[in-house]
Amino acid sequence: MKPIPSLADLAFEELKLPHTTARADDPGLPGFAPFVRGPYASMYVTNPWTLRQYAGFSTAEETNAFFRQALAGGQTGLSVAFDLPTHRGYDSDHPRVTGDVGKAGVAIDTVEDMKRLMDGIPLDRTSVSMTMNGAVLPVLAFFIVTAEEQGVAARALSGTIQNDILKEYMVRNTYIYPPAASVRIVGEIMAWLSAHAPRFNSISVSGYHMHEAGATAAQELAYTLANGLAYVQAGRAAGVNMETLAERMSFFWAQGMDYLTEVAKLRAARGLWARLLWQLGVRSPKALALRCHCQTSGWSLTRHDPLNNVVRTTIEALSAVHGHTQSLHTNSLDEAVALPSDEAARISRQTQLILRHETDACALIDPWGGSLEIKQRITALATEALALIEEIDAAGGMITAISQGIPQRRIEHAAATRQRRIDQAHDRIVGVNCHHRDNVEPIAIRNIDNRAVREAQVARLAAVRASRDQQRVNETLAALEHAATTGEGNLLELTIHAARARATLGEISDALERIFTRHNAVVQVMTGAYGGSMAPDDEIQAVRDRVARFAASNGRRPRLLVAKMGQDGHDRGAKVVAGAFADFGFDVDVAPMFRTPEEVCRQALDNDVHVIGISTLAGAHQTLVPELMTLLNDSGAAHVRVVVGGIIPDTDHDALCSAGVVAIFGPGSRLPDCAHQVLDHLDPA
Amino acid sequence: MKPIPSLADLAFEELKLPHTTARADDPGLPGFAPFVRGPYASMYVTNPWTLRQYAGFSTAEETNAFFRQALAGGQTGLSVAFDLPTHRGYDSDHPRVTGDVGKAGVAIDTVEDMKRLMDGIPLDRTSVSMTMNGAVLPVLAFFIVTAEEQGVAARALSGTIQNDILKEYMVRNTYIYPPAASVRIVGEIMAWLSAHAPRFNSISVSGYHMHEAGATAAQELAYTLANGLAYVQAGRAAGVNMETLAERMSFFWAQGMDYLTEVAKLRAARGLWARLLWQLGVRSPKALALRCHCQTSGWSLTRHDPLNNVVRTTIEALSAVHGHTQSLHTNSLDEAVALPSDEAARISRQTQLILRHETDACALIDPWGGSLEIKQRITALATEALALIEEIDAAGGMITAISQGIPQRRIEHAAATRQRRIDQAHDRIVGVNCHHRDNVEPIAIRNIDNRAVREAQVARLAAVRASRDQQRVNETLAALEHAATTGEGNLLELTIHAARARATLGEISDALERIFTRHNAVVQVMTGAYGGSMAPDDEIQAVRDRVARFAASNGRRPRLLVAKMGQDGHDRGAKVVAGAFADFGFDVDVAPMFRTPEEVCRQALDNDVHVIGISTLAGAHQTLVPELMTLLNDSGAAHVRVVVGGIIPDTDHDALCSAGVVAIFGPGSRLPDCAHQVLDHLDPA
Repeated sequence: MKPIPSLADLAFEELKLPHTTARADDPGLPGFAPFVRGPYASMYVTNPWTLRQYAGFSTAEETNAFFRQALAGGQTGLSVAFDLPTHRGYDSDHPRVTGDVGKAGVAIDTVEDMKRLMDGIPLDRTSVSMTMNGAVLPVLAFFIVTAEEQGVAARALSGTIQNDILKEYMVRNTYIYPPAASVRIVGEIMAWLSAHAPRFNSISVSGYHMHEAGATAAQELAYTLANGLAYVQAGRAAGVNMETLAERMSFFWAQGMDYLTEVAKLRAARGLWARLLWQLGVRSPKALALRCHCQTSGWSLTRHDPLNNVVRTTIEALSAVHGHTQSLHTNSLDEAVALPSDEAARISRQTQLILRHETDACALIDPWGGSLEIKQRITALATEALALIEEIDAAGGMITAISQGIPQRRIEHAAATRQRRIDQAHDRIVGVNCHHRDNVEPIAIRNIDNRAVREAQVARLAAVRASRDQQRVNETLAALEHAATTGEGNLLELTIHAARARATLGEISDALERIFTRHNAVVQVMTGAYGGSMAPDDEIQAVRDRVARFAASNGRRPRLLVAKMGQDGHDRGAKVVAGAFADFGFDVDVAPMFRTPEEVCRQALDNDVHVIGISTLAGAHQTLVPELMTLLNDSGAAHVRVVVGGIIPDTDHDALCSAGVVAIFGPGSRLPDCAHQVLDHLDPA
Repeated sequence: MKPIPSLADLAFEELKLPHTTARADDPGLPGFAPFVRGPYASMYVTNPWTLRQYAGFSTAEETNAFFRQALAGGQTGLSVAFDLPTHRGYDSDHPRVTGDVGKAGVAIDTVEDMKRLMDGIPLDRTSVSMTMNGAVLPVLAFFIVTAEEQGVAARALSGTIQNDILKEYMVRNTYIYPPAASVRIVGEIMAWLSAHAPRFNSISVSGYHMHEAGATAAQELAYTLANGLAYVQAGRAAGVNMETLAERMSFFWAQGMDYLTEVAKLRAARGLWARLLWQLGVRSPKALALRCHCQTSGWSLTRHDPLNNVVRTTIEALSAVHGHTQSLHTNSLDEAVALPSDEAARISRQTQLILRHETDACALIDPWGGSLEIKQRITALATEALALIEEIDAAGGMITAISQGIPQRRIEHAAATRQRRIDQAHDRIVGVNCHHRDNVEPIAIRNIDNRAVREAQVARLAAVRASRDQQRVNETLAALEHAATTGEGNLLELTIHAARARATLGEISDALERIFTRHNAVVQVMTGAYGGSMAPDDEIQAVRDRVARFAASNGRRPRLLVAKMGQDGHDRGAKVVAGAFADFGFDVDVAPMFRTPEEVCRQALDNDVHVIGISTLAGAHQTLVPELMTLLNDSGAAHVRVVVGGIIPDTDHDALCSAGVVAIFGPGSRLPDCAHQVLDHLDPA
């Protein structure tokens, strides 16, 4: 097998493939390698992008109703959001997930749930995208068995499974097993799909979550393409032909507010990917052409004055279209606060319909071709990205680089730097750090009754377990374990057998976990990124002085435990806060990911902290924060202050405050102000 | 004086000036002639566009409060919308304007109203734009006297007066005098301002209203530049140096939904204008560089599902910014229904703030420079525009061409063609002819109590008349009449004297009308544009068949009188409807513009029509339609059916229906459907 070449010799000049003979300043043609000007020659003129909104609400029935409404409302493909327990391989009745069931997507425990989700949706004619990485084996198996029981063969399925586990270790943390085992799963899925479901994209290599975690455009570009190369290796290791593999890969990018940068990023990605694959010996134009899905940035949205988010999303959607995306999700105006309401979802869908029908977007092949500023931006982005790819390459490839924390640290540094720029109002956000308007009417938001959803799922699980052939379940799970141990047989094939037997998602995941183990990330505090390496400015110095006074009168610095509870893996905020508070002079502990209230309470007592900062982005605070407060009180630790930050609807504030939370920090909070508020509660002087 | 050269020899190739030596495919540099790549070398990097929202509400006090709120909310310049009586030179107590006072902008009758409008706004530091063309002399004089009484000399004033009368004869109809007299006024204003207020732009040559009336981008481009050339001639006739004149001219463009076309339009405009002036001998770079204001298209907005309008306006605003506009108005989401509410105005302002602060717009000099598609689009637009300019030139210049109806007919034809394309759903509009959603919540809109505003203005006029020196008023008005007759003295200078003496807007306009007369446009029905020159399609044929049956059983064709009442001059809709109904086989009469209910009733009786179609876009229907219904009943003409079309808030429907209106057609109505509805009421069989 030909090895991945060192990337150091991939000098980036014109994104030209060696065989092209065009003039040096000729940007090439749309539809021809290196595809900088677009993956297809006629683009949207013959084939507009797919309007694909990512959605999932609590139960399979509710999500199914939303899907049907969306298809009737002009949507052209489905995209499923799963809840966090499903992502992390837990059944809804698992004790670790009480706060998370049905919160950030749909709960899927068995084939029966998947059948309810796809009820009445013809899977031979509807392209379905599934954002699943951790529990990718059972979810994909449930989908395939659902189609089978609808009478649709795997061969007829179209859509995409995200199946991009590497970025989870960098930013989103919805992994289950350690990296090497996970990458093996990716390869086996690729092998099975290429043999049995050739129209189904076996991977969507995702930069989106890196952007959302604070990565720069060049970082998103570099690490996503580097992950792509790692998957190409994994697929080859599983015996798949490299061209076949590349033809079924797609990419997933975020679209932020820097319009030209985002257009250039998509062009640079196509050029770089074609170049990287060419170096590996790929020659099929279809394999060399990078195809992608885009989503507008959730991070760019604000909780304040949510109609501004329609403006932001429109700008981002237009850059995706001008960048030649193959499908697009536009965020809803209320997504900085909650899951989309029906009205907000309608407007976000119509944003795309207006772009498609009312503008000239679909009449243009490549509007940006030839632009001097785009060319310059592409060169700058691609040069920076190649340097980052070379750094990964020099470390021995992505799996090693992740274990050394290389991409994580670079992204965390970028996130902290950006936060500081916003706190200083160097980077301005309308309604947040400039042009703030009071008296803006709140909008109606969707709330999820987590307890009711969980109870319903628990009952359904019990019904499935009661009606199935337990012997058959045990046999299929044992076969799966055996394959995981020996490497014999295909893991997806064997999971499909277990799914047919009605094994649950948790049971399948447990079987594999017994062999592969469960991954625990090492969490470190990055100091110096927020505070900067130069002398601190007056504002940071003022916080440091106050911390020093606290230390002088209390005999030790204020000690903060930053923790995330439940299955929410979005840790950008927690990491930025931890780093910044360390820069302010606090002693900062960071809890491991995915804590229970008991574990957080114990760590707070063990470390004798003054304050606990809970970061919450997926709604589990409604259940878990009051539990934590009770535990602290019962342990005689009522003196420990608790503050909560993240996405917390106004309607939850009263409940949190009456449970004893002393401060709530929403998106847009300035960190020096947060520090002063925390100190007010520790040291009222 | 050097004559304007024939335009036939301005062969358009590369938008290059003769002295440039660059390569043929070099698009030039931003800030250098012919300015295709932008009027300034550093563009928004050093000088962002001005956020200038056009606004006016009923009374000077209310508008003043809105202006102060807007300046506090991030707006950087003011733009005044006047009500229609003010535009047309009528005081608020004139009997022809009962339905219009304060409806579509602020009523200004005297210097005292202007002082209330600008109360607390420092005119030496606030750039003020005024959309005024008809009553341009009194309004500008009131503004100058207001500044004077604030202690601000004319020399210190900055801003723009629209002062573009020629396009009024083409599309918007807010003229007072015939074209030649009006153009003389334009020239004298230019002369006075260039001598006394050198920082104030003496004209804003406006394509916006042509776009709104249905003109294509090439038509908007051609006729606006041709009007600009006519004003250059008028200024020279008034003795102003041509370079000085050109340096104080600015242009005003609409931004529609064809993104690339709109960016190209602004670039082509700069290139063509530089070229045209160069041919006249202008050499100063400042004079050759076209500067402009842009406004997003009102016509593109829909009454249905108004949050979609935030999407549309954002797309249009971005094309204005990418086209290098110097200032921008973004429409509010509710403008297809009413004047903007405070909330809608806030969002439209923030649309621009987000573009400025959150995107890379202000970090880019010229993103589109070099783009191959833009270059092609510029060439196509400029070539078509030059052909249209040559047609005007061949007719003997714009004043003659307008009197022959040349630009009017071309624009009407484009509007009718576009309407047919929309009715056939060839051109799709989300929520109107595709993806229509029922059950969309209506939004809260601003309503104007026209009677109360009018009563207050009448009282104020009486107070001013009671307290002034009538002898002095008479003398200043007589001096103005004398100058109008003899051509001696400057008309603006003399109007300023009258304004100081507290002569009213109506009195000043009357004095000039006695010499210049009042212009009456000839209104004709354009047939064949909507129905097309080819054989009619099935849908049109079905209407024609039904009309033929009506004629067979009634002895004559159904006869329709299309009329506009009050001072609203927007007649695109009325003209398109008249032409289409003629194409359907109706006998169609079109009333002259600016009718009173009495005049419409009389014409309906004289012509023995079956149905009257009232077109209303400025809110006067609330007062005038019930008056018309009473007059018809009192004249024994209750059998005449009345239908109303245009911008009619839901809240007005009940009142119109109880007055006897049989059908109301809002924006988005399909004309064949309207015809069937009308026939249902004439011939229920």
